[in-house]
Order: sequence, then structure tokens, then C-alpha cells
Amino acid sequence: MDSHNIRSGFMDFPYLSTPQKNLMVNLVSKIEARLGSQLLPSSLPQDVQYFENESGSSQGTLDIRSGTQDSTVDFMLGSWIHSELPSGALNISTLTAYLNNTTDAPRFLLEFIQNSPTSLILILDLPPRKDLILYQDYLTTFYIDTQLDRLRQQLEKIPETRPYFSSSLYIRSALSPAAVSVLIDCGTGGPDRMDEIILGDVGPVAKEMLDVWLDKCVCGTRDMDEQEKNALKERDSLVNKKTLEIDLASGLPRLFGPDVANRVIEAIQKYFLA
Amino acid sequence: MDSHNIRSGFMDFPYLSTPQKNLMVNLVSKIEARLGSQLLPSSLPQDVQYFENESGSSQGTLDIRSGTQDSTVDFMLGSWIHSELPSGALNISTLTAYLNNTTDAPRFLLEFIQNSPTSLILILDLPPRKDLILYQDYLTTFYIDTQLDRLRQQLEKIPETRPYFSSSLYIRSALSPAAVSVLIDCGTGGPDRMDEIILGDVGPVAKEMLDVWLDKCVCGTRDMDEQEKNALKERDSLVNKKTLEIDLASGLPRLFGPDVANRVIEAIQKYFLA
Repeated sequence: MDSHNIRSGFMDFPYLSTPQKNLMVNLVSKIEARLGSQLLPSSLPQDVQYFENESGSSQGTLDIRSGTQDSTVDFMLGSWIHSELPSGALNISTLTAYLNNTTDAPRFLLEFIQNSPTSLILILDLPPRKDLILYQDYLTTFYIDTQLDRLRQQLEKIPETRPYFSSSLYIRSALSPAAVSVLIDCGTGGPDRMDEIILGDVGPVAKEMLDVWLDKCVCGTRDMDEQEKNALKERDSLVNKKTLEIDLASGLPRLFGPDVANRVIEAIQKYFLA
Repeated sequence: MDSHNIRSGFMDFPYLSTPQKNLMVNLVSKIEARLGSQLLPSSLPQDVQYFENESGSSQGTLDIRSGTQDSTVDFMLGSWIHSELPSGALNISTLTAYLNNTTDAPRFLLEFIQNSPTSLILILDLPPRKDLILYQDYLTTFYIDTQLDRLRQQLEKIPETRPYFSSSLYIRSALSPAAVSVLIDCGTGGPDRMDEIILGDVGPVAKEMLDVWLDKCVCGTRDMDEQEKNALKERDSLVNKKTLEIDLASGLPRLFGPDVANRVIEAIQKYFLA
């Protein structure tokens, strides 16, 4: 990641706890080790790779790497956002992979949303790109045969976790039925217990989910007829548009002001609405 | 319901607690008051309206009423199953409404699964009949504008409830993102606390969900072009087939033996696979 010449880069994660930072770095490194030659360097302007609001109380980084012509990867997006809010510090770290239309295999999505050292929302999933009711073989291939739900169950057993329901029904619809969507609340266990959970539980689960994605989803093209390809294209583009709307268009202006937010959103749009 | 001449009828609920029984009867009565003239009498054979295994340790009832020609209702299905298992008594009560292809509006689904007097699984939903990612206006009309998620949130607040994840990823996929799917575990609060929750919390929520369905879903036809109609037909038939497979084909033979199970499944198939 060619980000050493800017103030802070995606891979720096200066505001994350050591276990969270290490986990993110490990996951990105794993992806690069497997897909490195298929990923082009980021071509984002420097003021989109790193951005902050006027007072410096909100900072963000963005890293987008497109896939090469012969890759199934459309693009990989990594980002972190840090904001000093009156209620405390907000940290959001995201790692997500979009595949192109040579395959209908699921995407990869990891998101940490943290607004206190002792509580954390984790969303980890292979979001489907087909209607799982119509395409039951797709459900079987990517979710049942891969035993993906075992990972969700593993985290469910930890007493400090409980299921998290996004306030957006759309986002809930976009996740797979095996999605990990949990609130980890360590309460009196404090940040030490959070570190323990990230290290001992979240890390292994995230790595295993990424392995499934690397082994079963990104690894090759999948046959589709023209109709399926068109439907996939329509579905992907609707998901991208809506994700942009929900995740960014509402949150970024609030944290960074309209000018910075617009600059970042415009840069992302090139990939999302291509 | 013309079931007084058989040993026990759907509306008797002899094994349910009084609040659960009253709730089921109230919901059915509400449907009949609103849709009565659109529902034909049950034409199921008597040995399918009521059935039991050889020893009498498992009993079940089934009530299916088709919609009239001018109704949006395909059929309403009510059933209860009671089984004395070595682990304790199992009681499953179901009330579900299927709409025909003059509308793509959601179905209605209520299921109580109880295998102890102090714990209960409740599934309550308007399962969608379209891919919510492709049809965002559908999500808005039936789930967001109706504030359906408020009902799920109401039950989530009760300390004795926690989200329930069906072991079937297919069933999870078939539910809406606003589905109530909870395990109510009263522990030391005992059956009295369960009665309290059914009466004070589950009842009002179930009635309100049914109101939304009666007011917004079953009330009229919806315009669809031929392609949409065909897709709806395909999707409905896949859901029905799979529901039959998961819900009945696996469970009934275990509880009632193959002969009784086959008789019941064959009777249901006429409606599900029509």
C-alpha cells in the first residue's frame, strides 16, 4: 500500500487497540498474499486517501484497489474513520471486497464500529449476490456446505456478545443468513477483556471467514447465462448505490463537513457506480 | 370451523396455556371477521383434520381454508401438534396465510414452538414474496412505512427474550428483515411469567402484525407485469416446496410414523404444490 508519504495511511490504524490493528493488518496481508498480483495500486488522490475535517477532530483514510483485467475482483475497499465526538471517540474500520460479473460468488465484508473502549459492533459476512430463495444451490454452495454458520455460533457463545440488528432494514436484507452481526459489550470486563475477545475469538473467526471467501468465492469464474448476468449486474448496482447512500452519504457530511464528504463520495462513486 | 364432530379440532388447543390458546383463537377470529366471506370451509378429510400416532402420544390437527375466486387469499393454514416426548411435551402451533398471484404482498406467519412450560420459540413475520434487494419499494411499502420493526424491538426489550436463529439457513432467508424470531426463556420466573409475557407482550405484538397484514397486504390486488407474475409464481412455488420439505417431511414421520405422516403430507401437498 503506497501510503507512507501521506499523513496517515489505511494500514496505520493509529486509533485501534493493538489486537484490532493486528487483526486488520493480518487480514489485508492475507488478501495481498493470495491476490496481490490481481490488485492494482490505489489511484485515489492523496486528499481522499487521507482526509480530515477543519478542526482535525475527524480523520479518515480510504484505500481502493481495482482488480486486474483477468481477476474476479472488481475492487477491494479498506477504510478507517476516527472522530472525536462529544459522546466519546468513534472508530469505524471497514474491509470489503467486490467481485465483478465474471462470477456471482459472494462478496467479503468486515466492519468494526466502536464508540467506547468496552463495546464494539462487528459485522462479518459473505453478502450474497443472488436471491437465496430462488437460487437454493447458491445457498448450499456458499453457506451450507462451507458451514459458515458455525462461525456465527462460535461468537454467539461468548457471554459478552449479543446479536446486533442494524437500524437499516435494507442492510439487514443485504446480509447473508449466516452473517455475524454482533454487539460485543465487555462492561466491567473493560478494554482488557475486549482485547482478549478480539485476539481469541473474533480474529480466528474473521480469518476463517476470509479463508472461505478466498477458497470458494474469489477463486474462479462461474458460468451464467445472459439473463443471469444481467440480473446480477442490476442487483450489484442497486446494492452499491444503496450502500453508498446508507453508509456514506448520511454519515460522512456529519463527521467531515460537506466539502470533504463530497470529495470522498465522488471518488468512491467512480468505483461503486461504474 | 366445522370441527366439532371430530375428536379435537384446530380451534380447541387443548394443550396450550390459557393465554396462548386465547391468543390463537383471537387471531383466527380476527381473520375470520375480516376475511370470513372470502374463506371456503375446510375440505380436508377428517383423518387429516385430526390425526394421532398409534400409541396416542402424538396428536395433531390441521385446518386449511382456500380463498374464494375473488379473494387475494390462496389459503389459510392453521395447525397444532402435541407430542409426549421422553424429554417432555412438545407443542407447535402454526397460523399462516398464503396469498395468490393477484398480489405480491407478503404472507402472514405465526409459529409457537414450545418444549417446556417456561420456554417458547416465537416466529412472527410477514415473509416477503420478492427479493428485497431488487425491489426496494417493496421493502419500503411493507416493512419500513409500516414500522414493522418496532414490534420486534418491543419484544427484544423483555429481559426473558433473546433472538432465535433457526438451524435452517433457508428458513432464515425466507423471513423478512423485520421478523420476530425469539426464544422466550422464563427460567425461575416459571409458567406464570410466561403467561404474563404472552398476555402483555406477545399478544399485542401479534395482533398488531396481523393488523398490518390485514390492512396492507391482503386488502387488494397489486399491479404486476407478466414477467413479475412469472417470477412470483416461481418464487412462491419454491418457497412452498421447501417449506413442506423442511417443516413437515422431516418432522411429521418422526412424531407420527410414516403412514400418518404421508397421509397428512399428501393432503397438504394439494395446496402447497398446486
